[in-house]
Amino acid sequence: MEKRAQTSTPINEFLERRWSPRAFANRSVEPEKLRKLFEAARWSPSSANGQPWYFIVSLKENPEEFARAVDCLRPGNVAWARNAPVLLFTVARLKWPDKPDPNRHAIYDLGQSVAHLTFEAAAEGLFVHQMGGFFPDKVTETYGIPDGYEAMSAVAIGYSGDSDSLPEDLRKKELAPRNRKPLESFVFAGHWETPAPFLRS
Amino acid sequence: MEKRAQTSTPINEFLERRWSPRAFANRSVEPEKLRKLFEAARWSPSSANGQPWYFIVSLKENPEEFARAVDCLRPGNVAWARNAPVLLFTVARLKWPDKPDPNRHAIYDLGQSVAHLTFEAAAEGLFVHQMGGFFPDKVTETYGIPDGYEAMSAVAIGYSGDSDSLPEDLRKKELAPRNRKPLESFVFAGHWETPAPFLRS
Repeated sequence: MEKRAQTSTPINEFLERRWSPRAFANRSVEPEKLRKLFEAARWSPSSANGQPWYFIVSLKENPEEFARAVDCLRPGNVAWARNAPVLLFTVARLKWPDKPDPNRHAIYDLGQSVAHLTFEAAAEGLFVHQMGGFFPDKVTETYGIPDGYEAMSAVAIGYSGDSDSLPEDLRKKELAPRNRKPLESFVFAGHWETPAPFLRS
Repeated sequence: MEKRAQTSTPINEFLERRWSPRAFANRSVEPEKLRKLFEAARWSPSSANGQPWYFIVSLKENPEEFARAVDCLRPGNVAWARNAPVLLFTVARLKWPDKPDPNRHAIYDLGQSVAHLTFEAAAEGLFVHQMGGFFPDKVTETYGIPDGYEAMSAVAIGYSGDSDSLPEDLRKKELAPRNRKPLESFVFAGHWETPAPFLRS
């Protein structure tokens, strides 16, 4: 299923095609493709090259392992994410490696690395659906995440599936149009809420 | 100048080619390309589609406006970033639009949107260098950013320039090899610090 972004100007096709489905095909993701996704995340930029990103990955083909991951999701996400072939949790290291100071950009840089993973996924024909709806404390306990690290998101990855496989409420969401605020509402110049002049050209 | 990522497995060419130079060509960025960059950021995913990203953009071709942006950078970045044709500040809305609750993913989602901008830049032959070294309070004051919003990064954008144009200390950094921690140190399965088995395949 395609659900291309309705852009005001053409953008790269992988960015245009990227969206966050709930229906995933019953098909594993090839290990070599998984490796590419994390290699893409690896080469993300970060403040002072701090690389504050960590990932804990579960594959549906390992049912016990996968069940532990699914148990960390909020019920609304369990309903569809349990059918994805890959689930992962993203974790930020909140401090710098060799000093006690907080890294102001840890969570920002984690978000960037997940976006890099997502872009590589799009280039490989895969889809990614990120979730805020999970239990961070349960993830910390389940996987033994140490102090100073924070689980920030859950991520489902797989090939696109059939929206008819979803329960009716989720199917409606799957087919609903995508929307975004207009450029003029968030790209400013000179002063807050003054739209940048180049947007009109 | 090229400085491709030394990947352990091939990844998309735009991700491989992306890096953060300090030398920018003395050449403006076309307004239609700038628009594409922000359109790419616009279609980034976000928690509950909150879209907590904002950008304040300055072009070197408007010298007064550009000087105000440069004044918000830390001196180490002023040395090279004042020669980029485009400077911007990224800002996160820390709360949800219509309720007082903090948005746990605001800064993570801002990072993602900047990464989307960066991919589109790579696809358009442009380079992006993000900076943590700026004065957030000065940005807030200069541009009238309201309470509840936080300036998170400064970003230089332009075409690649000649590293010989840089002062010696910066030229050394520009030519230094890029490095990243190995996949096994941040991609886990089952438990923290247990490398995911698919990394070996």
